[in-house]
Amino acid sequence: ELREAVVALLRPKPQILSGKQVVITAGPTREAIDPVRYISNHSSGKMGFALATVAQQLGATVTLVAGPCQLSTPYGVERVDVISADDMLQAVEAVIDAADIFIGCAAVADYRPQKVGSTKIKKNSESLVLEFTRNPDILATVAARKKPPFTIGFAAETNDVVNYAAGKLTRKKLNLIAANDVSDTQIGFNSDDNAMTLLWHDKNNELQQRALGRDSKTAIAEAILTQANQLLNNATS
Amino acid sequence: ELREAVVALLRPKPQILSGKQVVITAGPTREAIDPVRYISNHSSGKMGFALATVAQQLGATVTLVAGPCQLSTPYGVERVDVISADDMLQAVEAVIDAADIFIGCAAVADYRPQKVGSTKIKKNSESLVLEFTRNPDILATVAARKKPPFTIGFAAETNDVVNYAAGKLTRKKLNLIAANDVSDTQIGFNSDDNAMTLLWHDKNNELQQRALGRDSKTAIAEAILTQANQLLNNATS
Repeated sequence: ELREAVVALLRPKPQILSGKQVVITAGPTREAIDPVRYISNHSSGKMGFALATVAQQLGATVTLVAGPCQLSTPYGVERVDVISADDMLQAVEAVIDAADIFIGCAAVADYRPQKVGSTKIKKNSESLVLEFTRNPDILATVAARKKPPFTIGFAAETNDVVNYAAGKLTRKKLNLIAANDVSDTQIGFNSDDNAMTLLWHDKNNELQQRALGRDSKTAIAEAILTQANQLLNNATS
Repeated sequence: ELREAVVALLRPKPQILSGKQVVITAGPTREAIDPVRYISNHSSGKMGFALATVAQQLGATVTLVAGPCQLSTPYGVERVDVISADDMLQAVEAVIDAADIFIGCAAVADYRPQKVGSTKIKKNSESLVLEFTRNPDILATVAARKKPPFTIGFAAETNDVVNYAAGKLTRKKLNLIAANDVSDTQIGFNSDDNAMTLLWHDKNNELQQRALGRDSKTAIAEAILTQANQLLNNATS
């Protein structure tokens, strides 16, 4: 991280996000079933941390709201650690008022157990039925604000990726969505590489898309942030 | 780990487990719900890895069957990485024939989802019901063998710890059980310290117990292995 910061200082990137406040969520969330058990997902947090690293290098003031993951804090980035989706929403809401760009990169658990046991559940029966309830949708909550920041979502899917992402872009009123196919183990989740398709609506509300070929998550992050900045400038010019 | 190995060489422990084969399970297991979601628990694997480290230093040949955890392999120990309870049972069964001592220290998920989705479950509804089925009981399976190794179990509970552990000792036909209270965050799970109560039946089938006060997981591991070796020698003498 320090090494990256030094490289960034020696080869400064264009400060296109100078003066911008960027809030990024990253990693998985964990939803408690009881004091020892939880439900989670395979997100490593690498994509969100890469976005935070690059946004800072592009001149932004960055707050990174991170679920449980094993990554060190990028240089110059303010990090807030959280566990559950509810925690994450609260942490985002505490900082979102001032944000120009919100990037919901975390793999937020869609559901949490309806009841959380205060003591460890005993394994008395051959089967167990757990009821889950929907978690808050952090991305949609941010995008539905009266004065929403430029809101970027991610769609990690195993099938029909681009169609699903286009639906999510419209339904959640996002400004930009980055879609990737997590069934390909060469990219996504624990991998250091990624490949994505960016989707957005232009001024005439036409769906636009741009493919980002397989590259490091850092390079993908720079492409996403550059595209976002361009759309943000078009919208405000 | 190398440092510990050097210290161990300079100050060799009594080789009480020389010639003994020890199989240890450690860490959590992860049970897939679909390609991205899973259920797991907060076990760090530290206690099992400490047992493997110390057993090797006491002269044993050690196989460590480890669920997903972030720990490096102890010096001189053969490590087999697994994900689910089914994987773990398979890995244990592959090496258990030759084992003198089996230590089931992993926090094996008691239940796994009945059906594993081959594609990511979409979040269409406000609630979700998942059915779980019991996982194999690795400890009981090993203890129920025709010629079982000396079998050591663990009971990590949040309430009524010693009573529950005594029941588990009898029900699963274990030779020794180490019980701890995981509701105390100073010890257990992610902590480097632990405090335990050892329980076993003596030759007259009377329940015996010995409290191990709060200490490093390495010191607790040595106490457990020394107790086990003493009981094993008594039984075979």
